[in-house]
Amino acid sequence: MYINVPEVKVPRVVIIGCGFGGLELVKQLSKIEVQIVLIDKNNYHTFQPLLYQVSTAGLEADSIAYPIRKIFKGQKNFHFRMGEVQQLVSEENKLITSIGEIKYDYLIIATGSTTNYFGIKDFEEHAMPMKSVTEALDLRSLILQNFEKALLIKDLHEQEALMTFAVVGGGPTGVELAGALCELKKHVLPNDYPELDFRKMRVVLIENGGELLQAMNEINRKRANTYLDELGCEVWLNTGVAKYDGSVVEMKSGKQLLTSGLIWAAGIKAVLIDGLNKESINARGRIIIDDYCKVKSYENIFAIGDAACMVQEKFRNGHPQIAPVAIQQAQLVASNLKKSLKQCAPDKFSYFDKGTMATVGRNRAVVEVGNFTFGRFFGWLAWMGLHLMLLVGFRNRVVVFINWVWSYINYDRNIRLIIRPFKKGG
Amino acid sequence: MYINVPEVKVPRVVIIGCGFGGLELVKQLSKIEVQIVLIDKNNYHTFQPLLYQVSTAGLEADSIAYPIRKIFKGQKNFHFRMGEVQQLVSEENKLITSIGEIKYDYLIIATGSTTNYFGIKDFEEHAMPMKSVTEALDLRSLILQNFEKALLIKDLHEQEALMTFAVVGGGPTGVELAGALCELKKHVLPNDYPELDFRKMRVVLIENGGELLQAMNEINRKRANTYLDELGCEVWLNTGVAKYDGSVVEMKSGKQLLTSGLIWAAGIKAVLIDGLNKESINARGRIIIDDYCKVKSYENIFAIGDAACMVQEKFRNGHPQIAPVAIQQAQLVASNLKKSLKQCAPDKFSYFDKGTMATVGRNRAVVEVGNFTFGRFFGWLAWMGLHLMLLVGFRNRVVVFINWVWSYINYDRNIRLIIRPFKKGG
Repeated sequence: MYINVPEVKVPRVVIIGCGFGGLELVKQLSKIEVQIVLIDKNNYHTFQPLLYQVSTAGLEADSIAYPIRKIFKGQKNFHFRMGEVQQLVSEENKLITSIGEIKYDYLIIATGSTTNYFGIKDFEEHAMPMKSVTEALDLRSLILQNFEKALLIKDLHEQEALMTFAVVGGGPTGVELAGALCELKKHVLPNDYPELDFRKMRVVLIENGGELLQAMNEINRKRANTYLDELGCEVWLNTGVAKYDGSVVEMKSGKQLLTSGLIWAAGIKAVLIDGLNKESINARGRIIIDDYCKVKSYENIFAIGDAACMVQEKFRNGHPQIAPVAIQQAQLVASNLKKSLKQCAPDKFSYFDKGTMATVGRNRAVVEVGNFTFGRFFGWLAWMGLHLMLLVGFRNRVVVFINWVWSYINYDRNIRLIIRPFKKGG
Repeated sequence: MYINVPEVKVPRVVIIGCGFGGLELVKQLSKIEVQIVLIDKNNYHTFQPLLYQVSTAGLEADSIAYPIRKIFKGQKNFHFRMGEVQQLVSEENKLITSIGEIKYDYLIIATGSTTNYFGIKDFEEHAMPMKSVTEALDLRSLILQNFEKALLIKDLHEQEALMTFAVVGGGPTGVELAGALCELKKHVLPNDYPELDFRKMRVVLIENGGELLQAMNEINRKRANTYLDELGCEVWLNTGVAKYDGSVVEMKSGKQLLTSGLIWAAGIKAVLIDGLNKESINARGRIIIDDYCKVKSYENIFAIGDAACMVQEKFRNGHPQIAPVAIQQAQLVASNLKKSLKQCAPDKFSYFDKGTMATVGRNRAVVEVGNFTFGRFFGWLAWMGLHLMLLVGFRNRVVVFINWVWSYINYDRNIRLIIRPFKKGG
């Protein structure tokens, strides 16, 4: 059965995924004579950079998610269908999905990435991921549940495990999350649990490599270390994790840490689609695309963002898997599609690096734009301003802004709710 | 195993439930020489009067729920434990709960009420309740999922069922919900689903009795009818429902209505505790209390609010199951406890009726204070003001206020998110 979408004479562009790439693509294609069908398993776009604030009770989930239909309200060539893609049948130019089949003239894969446990079963089973709204909400529940449990327990080891949070992975996500957990320890949770001794609460950031924020320059890497240190976070560098049973994590060195709350921020992997040719996927599991974002071995299939890998000078392993790359690739694909409809030659992709930033708790952030870096309070203001600007929807911006001002003045996080208790394996 | 709570010399008051009654009780007991242990299955207080706005995508769940620990921050004689009460063992003055046992000197049951299906299996199985935050979120998901499905379907009967919402029960909850659904139909959903014909969307309010809002006076009952009529809601009075299979509801008259979204707002019942004497429970399943809120056949067990039933002059069937009764009973119990510790005689309960109100969509509400009634825009302003005032927490008030202003200006509801898709049976 085919998905119910109007039959029209213009080419149909099917886009899978409404992350930063998919979102930009639909916007850019709005004035082109094509029919756009966007498929996503959720009916909302997630502003992933703020997921860690949902996990740590700083923001409502609803203010960093935005209904897809609302974003493209009034865009006539646009059709959204909520469903999961199951199989690509490229010989017939069609996709099989959970809600039916659909034919395409052009297919654009913008499926993004998911948590990568690198095949380590222990962590897949017991660690908490944080790549989606529901995962972030589960993490929020788990953190609060652990403290509710810690209150009831007299066994000191068990209590220690419940009050220790280990974040694996020293990239921006790990650093931001660890900073936010330290803020919870410092300003929020001791008021909620006066019966617990918060000197016992530990936040440990575990990084396999020798430094945090490896994509940033040396000044900022050091700054991040200093900031985390000031916040009371233990940073364990050059430390690989080996085993985890849900309450004890063992390092490759044999060292152990008691923790019932281990968050995995150590890696991501491309979300692929069944039916893609093997030769189109590289050794690291990303979809191989050329300078035009065209997928290897296909003529009318493109891929952008985290799921894709374009090898260029300076980017021998592909571009970084971050939002600006996805957005710029979306812009390129849209503009090339426009050109091809006019029989013009397409442009090659060229990445414009706008810089990176990460926040480390209250009043502290590291920002890097070209050769220019700054930190502390100004970095933090820049971080806040940019993220407010990038959030979709004016209402969301206002609500997030109020939450931030509120938290800043009151040293507080308001959303300490266990709406759906987290249960392992369900 | 006993729940880990400090042993002290002052009497221990255990309160079950943090609804309006439990919340007020803890506040009132703060300056009395007792130890308070509050047990609730959630770690938050729910502002139930606005649940229907969560269901209809107008408000975030997080802005009508408030963390219990935060409310009573700094109150030294207060201990909160998250758990479910399983059994009362009154001979030993103790409760058995999901997190262990606890002894009490005084027990106060403030468990409130839950949905009452009056034993009709069909509705228990297929209807949507709306008495908790999670139920309201499930309902929000279901409403949106039904429209996503309606898009995919060509069968006209199936589409009709997906686009028809039946609300059973013409009390304030049913009326407010039906009004909000009509607003969705009028202002919001047609923008989201331009491919659907919204003349097909129906909202049907089904009431067993001869009038809506039976607790209100005649003027307001008529007003409610008029307002719903203006909004395009079909009101079926004198209509009992008999059967429902998830897609067709059959009335007692044999009349049928196709609907995949039936919301049950037709009744509530007290939440009881296992182990209560049978003689302490009346024929309607409420806990029998005397003029002092003391439960029949016990000396140190009290009950307040929806779960309890006090027969007094003018209230032969007990007081209405609404927040003001619970709050006033909580105040009485606290003040009497204070008096009894000072060996003074306790006071009898006397209900002060502050009036009632219900809102019917945008710009319309019915309000009744004593013999004074008003409606339309002024009623609506009064309704908004009062609800903002009663919401716990300044941040919540600000966020709710912004959402309301936003929706008012833009004729919009922002939270159209399917965060956790609803699946029947879990």
